[in-house]
Amino acid sequence: MEKNNETLHVLRHSCSHIMAQAVQKLFPQAKLAIGPATDSGFYYDFDLTDGHAFTHDDLAKIEEEMKNIIKQNLTFERYEIPDVEKQIAEFKLEGEIYKAELLEEHRNDNPTLYLTKDKDGNVLFNDLCAGPHIPNTSYIKGNAIKLLKVAGAYWRGNEKNKMLQRIYATAYWNKEDLQNYLTFLEEAEKRDHRKLGTQLDLFSVREEIGAGLVLWHPNLAVVREQIENYWREEHRKRGYVIVNTPQIAKSKLWEISGHMDHYKENMFFIQKDDEDSDEQFVVKPMNCPFHILIYQANRYSYRSLPLRMAELGTVYRKEKSGALSGLTRVQGFTQDDAHIFCTPEQLVDEINAIIDFVADTMKIFKMEFEVELSTRPDSYVGELENWERAEAGLKEAMDRRGMKYDINEGDGAFYGPKIDFKVKDAIGRTWQCATIQLDFNLPERFDIKYQDKDGSMKTPIMLHRVIFGSMERFHGILIEHYAGAFPTWLAPTQVAIVPISNEKHVDFAEKVYKKMRDLGIRVKLDDRSESMNYKIRDSLQDKKIPYVCVIGDKEIESNSVAIRKRGVGQIGTKSVDEFIADIEKEIKDRA
Amino acid sequence: MEKNNETLHVLRHSCSHIMAQAVQKLFPQAKLAIGPATDSGFYYDFDLTDGHAFTHDDLAKIEEEMKNIIKQNLTFERYEIPDVEKQIAEFKLEGEIYKAELLEEHRNDNPTLYLTKDKDGNVLFNDLCAGPHIPNTSYIKGNAIKLLKVAGAYWRGNEKNKMLQRIYATAYWNKEDLQNYLTFLEEAEKRDHRKLGTQLDLFSVREEIGAGLVLWHPNLAVVREQIENYWREEHRKRGYVIVNTPQIAKSKLWEISGHMDHYKENMFFIQKDDEDSDEQFVVKPMNCPFHILIYQANRYSYRSLPLRMAELGTVYRKEKSGALSGLTRVQGFTQDDAHIFCTPEQLVDEINAIIDFVADTMKIFKMEFEVELSTRPDSYVGELENWERAEAGLKEAMDRRGMKYDINEGDGAFYGPKIDFKVKDAIGRTWQCATIQLDFNLPERFDIKYQDKDGSMKTPIMLHRVIFGSMERFHGILIEHYAGAFPTWLAPTQVAIVPISNEKHVDFAEKVYKKMRDLGIRVKLDDRSESMNYKIRDSLQDKKIPYVCVIGDKEIESNSVAIRKRGVGQIGTKSVDEFIADIEKEIKDRA
Repeated sequence: MEKNNETLHVLRHSCSHIMAQAVQKLFPQAKLAIGPATDSGFYYDFDLTDGHAFTHDDLAKIEEEMKNIIKQNLTFERYEIPDVEKQIAEFKLEGEIYKAELLEEHRNDNPTLYLTKDKDGNVLFNDLCAGPHIPNTSYIKGNAIKLLKVAGAYWRGNEKNKMLQRIYATAYWNKEDLQNYLTFLEEAEKRDHRKLGTQLDLFSVREEIGAGLVLWHPNLAVVREQIENYWREEHRKRGYVIVNTPQIAKSKLWEISGHMDHYKENMFFIQKDDEDSDEQFVVKPMNCPFHILIYQANRYSYRSLPLRMAELGTVYRKEKSGALSGLTRVQGFTQDDAHIFCTPEQLVDEINAIIDFVADTMKIFKMEFEVELSTRPDSYVGELENWERAEAGLKEAMDRRGMKYDINEGDGAFYGPKIDFKVKDAIGRTWQCATIQLDFNLPERFDIKYQDKDGSMKTPIMLHRVIFGSMERFHGILIEHYAGAFPTWLAPTQVAIVPISNEKHVDFAEKVYKKMRDLGIRVKLDDRSESMNYKIRDSLQDKKIPYVCVIGDKEIESNSVAIRKRGVGQIGTKSVDEFIADIEKEIKDRA
Repeated sequence: MEKNNETLHVLRHSCSHIMAQAVQKLFPQAKLAIGPATDSGFYYDFDLTDGHAFTHDDLAKIEEEMKNIIKQNLTFERYEIPDVEKQIAEFKLEGEIYKAELLEEHRNDNPTLYLTKDKDGNVLFNDLCAGPHIPNTSYIKGNAIKLLKVAGAYWRGNEKNKMLQRIYATAYWNKEDLQNYLTFLEEAEKRDHRKLGTQLDLFSVREEIGAGLVLWHPNLAVVREQIENYWREEHRKRGYVIVNTPQIAKSKLWEISGHMDHYKENMFFIQKDDEDSDEQFVVKPMNCPFHILIYQANRYSYRSLPLRMAELGTVYRKEKSGALSGLTRVQGFTQDDAHIFCTPEQLVDEINAIIDFVADTMKIFKMEFEVELSTRPDSYVGELENWERAEAGLKEAMDRRGMKYDINEGDGAFYGPKIDFKVKDAIGRTWQCATIQLDFNLPERFDIKYQDKDGSMKTPIMLHRVIFGSMERFHGILIEHYAGAFPTWLAPTQVAIVPISNEKHVDFAEKVYKKMRDLGIRVKLDDRSESMNYKIRDSLQDKKIPYVCVIGDKEIESNSVAIRKRGVGQIGTKSVDEFIADIEKEIKDRA
């Protein structure tokens, strides 16, 4: 068996068996549930029937025991269960109720066990498992496995079932790979937007309001304002119009759109005043039907299309509270939404323009992206000709710019093909952001029209499109991408002014402060009675402010500031005007 | 009896009796309901029992009959009802069921009738009425009364009762005053924001969404964007921080705030997933509790206050659908909300600064305003000392700038005094917009604190404050104030470029168009195949675009544009760059 990236999940799966074997040795009361490999490691779910909760020390002991097991050079052996009913009874007898339950479900799938045997052929451990596994434990390096943490997990992910204890761990073919991964994890933890959110006073989620509903504190609201300004500016340049639509609407609207049939579970319904009334309000989960109604307010010809209509539209979608976290998994969020109404002939140009828009935008954030195309499923609505034209157009647009993309054949929605953009952050993680979704369905449902060249009335094609996805999610990604150290144009505070002595230098410092403030630079004057060094460190390192301007006798004399740059240190002295001109350019260029 | 503005409502009340007398003569089947004077005229509600609906011609006939009645020089006479039960029976006998119902309710209030008598003492008309009235009809000028329109009105304003027909009319002491009022009405009708909203494609309200929920079309969304930019810019200058908060929150939050006790009827509650759950979500009717939670995320000393926290916060408040209209009476709206947390010592300065903010803002829109101060009611919360300090501060702030204001003694909310600003629009109507509301209550309820000079923890005072009130309402007011002709900085389209000949001049026109567009000027190129004059009229008059730049041979030769200004006409030719510099300055200055 080759040791490479493709076979890594086999190694990890075998490691999960070793982990279960170690746990059963150290905690005989443990019942085993499931233990799969994942993209980044493996885990195993245990029921410690006596209520004991795994501690940090337990994990160390289990890891040690795993290393002992590995040293024994045990083999993994596939074993077809000859008598399934007997095996079920045996699991039950052993108290392995979870294994028994699984085997009962798979009794007709030719189930197998994997046996872990010593060199004398004794079975030290067995697990219900489809395999494959590594031949023997010599493939595992004791210094390339690591137990990471314990978390609660409901049996089969159902909150009505018992909460089990899941041990997360990882394994690599060699120590170096493990070390790289652990460094990555550490880096990711440092960048965790929930942690930075509190540390930098960016946002909060409060129990009194509810999970997945975000309070944007002033610091993050400023970042958002810059992003929204960029967004509006770029939309105007690219020929979009911008609208505002309400957050609640009658269910009638969602009946026309079809969301009442297909999306009901995710919608927040408003209580009726009168139970018998058929007037029911709903908090909007989508902006599209509103934009269609605005389309309806005018008449269009093929010449007045495309109509590109954008909105920073705040929507609410009901999610299980267990799935909610920070800014990235929320129930309320603002989509940077747009809908483009166009003729079939205009479609390819429009798709091209959106890809340009996404590429130009991600370049500003220094984020690369990957692309996936999902194509026509077996059951679909709309004209086959339009589907083919659309898919060819999507492909052509990407090919033309030499973009690589994966194709998910048949994985598009029934109403149209789509392109998903996955951006890569500074430590290589990918995040789903921009999407282009074609829609042959809603224009039919709302019966919207335009007049074509020949005078006939036709149904336009509609594109749903986001660049950032949701403002909440994108800001979560940005915080992690920048590790909270926003570039100057986004930084909540751009400059801190630090007088060396509050008595001698604060007047000039205040003059410099006011000058910058009146020019719209986000500046603060740090006149606390702390040491200069403390204040510099606090600004650059703790608050992650891009620039500190220190002011002492020399600076007052020469009408200048001594500049410290975040992540760089001292970068010399500049005249006040020169510093202002430089930072204004940096902000304007979104550098 | 003197004929002046104070006694005008007496004249009008008498006119309503004359109108009822005329209606009963022409429509003997009519039952009388009520007929009061109003600030701008009078009305009377009739039940035309046979289902006939008053026509335009009917109104003319009724007005004619009123003039006949007036000429007879009838007198009005007060008559104390000697036997109320007998009078009730008499009303019932006459079929005057509405009068009977009213008299039954007022049987113990010493009710009176007013009798309209001819010179021989014959009673031609009587009405249940507390008076007073003019002595006789010679006080009424036939050419100073005017019947205006008919509208439906439920008996006693209750939609469960019968729908009656209300005739609206007005009367003045003389013809000139009537004429001025009719001119004003005509002007107001031309400015009606609902009419202009459709004509200028500004907004719509759709049955599929619901009453009082506004779709902002691109044209009005652009206006709003400019206003919001101004708003954010000014808030930053004035030391505010800006936040964003969600539209839904658990009922728990509203229990703490007290809204669950006092504001429940106006709140949109979200259906529970599980009836037995005590987790209930509510669509927010206010932003204040959210801002308090953000306050709670940090610790404050007297030195770090005041904290001025602002949000363009979209709220939803349930209203009876009959009360909803256009942009000015809505169920969903964005407040330009702010909350200021300060120490008692800082209060007067903060109030002063807000009055400055309101005054500076209204100056930009060339709107004057009137002010009303509402003071401490008998039952109140908070320290008497703070109330007195606050009221004195509010008065001092206004006195200092020589502002006139009315005082509504005892009319403040139980939690604090307030100032209401009523702006006057271009035709003299007043609209409630800005408010400063002090609050001694919410800070206690949420138990928020700051550390004072002496180290003790104290409760800050909270100010609620809006400048525009709601964006929806303010834009409705702006549309009427400007009669749809927005100043250049706000205009949805600022410049239309009109080539005299599409063949010869459109290339240069397009160059000029692109140059302006790339500079962020909202410009459109009108290359339709219509005559130049049609296009100029369409832009300046119908679409109310501030500038039209006409381009012909001469203009191309001299790289210039021939300018037409809305409401002015031709204002000569300028080089393209000069025109751009001028309009950019006009926009920047918000002139």
